[in-house]
Amino acid sequence: MSHESVPLPNKASCPHIVRAPTVIAMVGLPARGKTYISKKLTRYLNWIGITTRAFNVGEYRRAATNSYKNHNFFRSDNKEAQEIRTKCAVMAINDACKFLDRGGEVAVIDATNTTKERRRMLVHHCTEQHQFKLFFVESVCDDPNIIEANILEVKVCSPDYTGQDKNEAVKDFLQRIEHYRHTYETMDDATERDLSYIQIFNQGERFIVNKLAGHLQSRVVYYLMNIHVLPRTIYLTRHGESAMNLLGKIGGDSDLSERGWAYAEALGRFVEEENIPQLKVWTSELKRTIQTSRYVNAPKEHWKALNEIDAGVCEGMTYEEIQQKYPEEFALRDQDKFHYRYPSGESYQDLVARLEPVILELERQENVMVICHQAVCRCLLAYFQDKSAEEIPYVPVPFESVVRMRMSGPRCQAETIPLLRRPSVSEGASPYGRKVDTGSLWL
Amino acid sequence: MSHESVPLPNKASCPHIVRAPTVIAMVGLPARGKTYISKKLTRYLNWIGITTRAFNVGEYRRAATNSYKNHNFFRSDNKEAQEIRTKCAVMAINDACKFLDRGGEVAVIDATNTTKERRRMLVHHCTEQHQFKLFFVESVCDDPNIIEANILEVKVCSPDYTGQDKNEAVKDFLQRIEHYRHTYETMDDATERDLSYIQIFNQGERFIVNKLAGHLQSRVVYYLMNIHVLPRTIYLTRHGESAMNLLGKIGGDSDLSERGWAYAEALGRFVEEENIPQLKVWTSELKRTIQTSRYVNAPKEHWKALNEIDAGVCEGMTYEEIQQKYPEEFALRDQDKFHYRYPSGESYQDLVARLEPVILELERQENVMVICHQAVCRCLLAYFQDKSAEEIPYVPVPFESVVRMRMSGPRCQAETIPLLRRPSVSEGASPYGRKVDTGSLWL
Repeated sequence: MSHESVPLPNKASCPHIVRAPTVIAMVGLPARGKTYISKKLTRYLNWIGITTRAFNVGEYRRAATNSYKNHNFFRSDNKEAQEIRTKCAVMAINDACKFLDRGGEVAVIDATNTTKERRRMLVHHCTEQHQFKLFFVESVCDDPNIIEANILEVKVCSPDYTGQDKNEAVKDFLQRIEHYRHTYETMDDATERDLSYIQIFNQGERFIVNKLAGHLQSRVVYYLMNIHVLPRTIYLTRHGESAMNLLGKIGGDSDLSERGWAYAEALGRFVEEENIPQLKVWTSELKRTIQTSRYVNAPKEHWKALNEIDAGVCEGMTYEEIQQKYPEEFALRDQDKFHYRYPSGESYQDLVARLEPVILELERQENVMVICHQAVCRCLLAYFQDKSAEEIPYVPVPFESVVRMRMSGPRCQAETIPLLRRPSVSEGASPYGRKVDTGSLWL
Repeated sequence: MSHESVPLPNKASCPHIVRAPTVIAMVGLPARGKTYISKKLTRYLNWIGITTRAFNVGEYRRAATNSYKNHNFFRSDNKEAQEIRTKCAVMAINDACKFLDRGGEVAVIDATNTTKERRRMLVHHCTEQHQFKLFFVESVCDDPNIIEANILEVKVCSPDYTGQDKNEAVKDFLQRIEHYRHTYETMDDATERDLSYIQIFNQGERFIVNKLAGHLQSRVVYYLMNIHVLPRTIYLTRHGESAMNLLGKIGGDSDLSERGWAYAEALGRFVEEENIPQLKVWTSELKRTIQTSRYVNAPKEHWKALNEIDAGVCEGMTYEEIQQKYPEEFALRDQDKFHYRYPSGESYQDLVARLEPVILELERQENVMVICHQAVCRCLLAYFQDKSAEEIPYVPVPFESVVRMRMSGPRCQAETIPLLRRPSVSEGASPYGRKVDTGSLWL
């Protein structure tokens, strides 16, 4: 009997969620938040380790036509424009399929796809020509407030209206929506019952989900059921200086130092001045974050999932001690900081998995201040700022400062607000000062 | 300024998914799979570390009335019986609330709850008297095949019909359904729009989800979107003996031994004889499981998530070497085997998190054979056999055998089929023989 050697799959993979590559196709009238959903979904899937890219048909259209004139381009009886639009859609679909053929796992087609015919074309390209899975995400919206907010968003941001009068832009855009409405066919319970899709009503009030195919799709649904578009602000900060920080030691569960308490007081004053409606404060379960929240006047919750990365055998050691005792670990960590797992501790990859429920709950909330730790802050900032896994361990986290992220629809405006004026005397001289600079290399 | 000490929360918790305790209340006519869903959901939530218990109102009713006579008990005009039924429902709800007050995280009320009035009573008890979250899960079903299958299930299993003629039982049960139908009100889009609920149509063909409140509910929805009730068989087996096994070493990625190849051949013959329609084979990405699948004639997929528990620094060592080199680890592991994490490796708890996508995908599938490893088999068996986290590391995994789990609705009939007659000469004498017996203590 011959026992020929069995070739091992050479694909390094994270836990296998994607079996066949998947095309996610948006459906909906303009100003229904399709681009917002596409961007968030893409960012989330990449963050949990699934290689995802969005293909925006509008961008193809802008590249194909010299400049946007007005809504007449979108009239259903404008044959010439129709041809350009179909050509652009096909180009985007082809690029998406190429991306999946070359190792991509999920491609998001960000377009209106408002007719059954167009959706059948997607079925043909994605599932018949290629063997990809296809999942439609339709955003249905009849709440005028949501639509208006989305239009204002477009008015401000769309390259189609750069330099134009705002009111004219809104008027044109409303007519554009009307052109689409002429031919719009919502996902059809009867004739499209064979398709896999989710319909999102008024941005999350209600959902219809049909013929889910596979785990990835259920994961996408799970995520879509957690996001919302209400404007809100998320505040992120590390705890104030702790006794362990003073000694230059990592990990542990020590109290704040005097300086740390000063930060806690400054943070309390900051929140008072910000005057944030219905703010919630989340801390880890470690003393230094709970103490940092002491003077913030808002309801508090403590999450174990927000605890600092577990440094395992290195907990409570100084940077020098680790270098001395575990020189190999030191070198290993340097090589692949994202996947490196502390002996008996955690890696950044572990941290991302542990933080996923926090991210999903954060998506559900409105104004939240998260008081946590350096490595945890990195993962959370990376999520909101669209950083890749490899970048996460190097995301800069400002010390004794609050990162204020104002979110409104798809936009996230981040600003760093230092709260303690650091006495220049001790700067660089205190062990903690040093740790802030070199520590990022380690933690 | 006084820096009074901040009390630390003393609740040891797994990643925080549950913020407020949640009551999940089933809704639906008899024979719509409510008990099936309750049981699966309870098992799943416990498996991922959320303390959950189901409260079956039917059991309260059976305890309250001496014996079930016939369907007349369920007539809507049977005042006396109605009173008993309401009393039983209240008892179950009270017990559920008590359970949540005492640290339980999720209580599942397994009852019909087919009227708006009954659902309002639940709202009153759970969210007004207590501050619990309430989530309704309605199973709507008009597919006669599914209903018939569920009735046959009940006919076989229900304590109400023990010892009765099967046909009489079915007849009575059908009338019972009719009594419920008189007063049945499905979850109402208009008047119950303020409630959080999922409607499941024909056991997963389609879903409507309304006003999800919180991450746990979206997790429940995510799970419900992955399960199905079609009868099917799951086969679980460890790989055959490997070269590393022969040397008594753990971990690594070695080829099968001659004996291991004999098991691979036996497995191929077994599958041929079983003649399983549309069988899929899943292995880990390690050579010993891929080789074990060599003679099985079925499509194969290799999952990294099915790889053996990562023994970290202990990979490639013998049991004796580990004991010698890491006596402390040895003792630590013995104390809390579920949470113990190998230095630079994984714990059983890590494994459960890593296996969750496999479980969900397995739930979606029909006939699957999983060829994996001891620790992985333990977690999978624990899921299907309803074992607690603490029991997982001690679940016995038969060697050179297939565990056949025949699932039909809520039932899982498991059977162990040994495939290789082990020569008694080497039994207990070969290093592998020994490892099989003592190894379970370690891996």
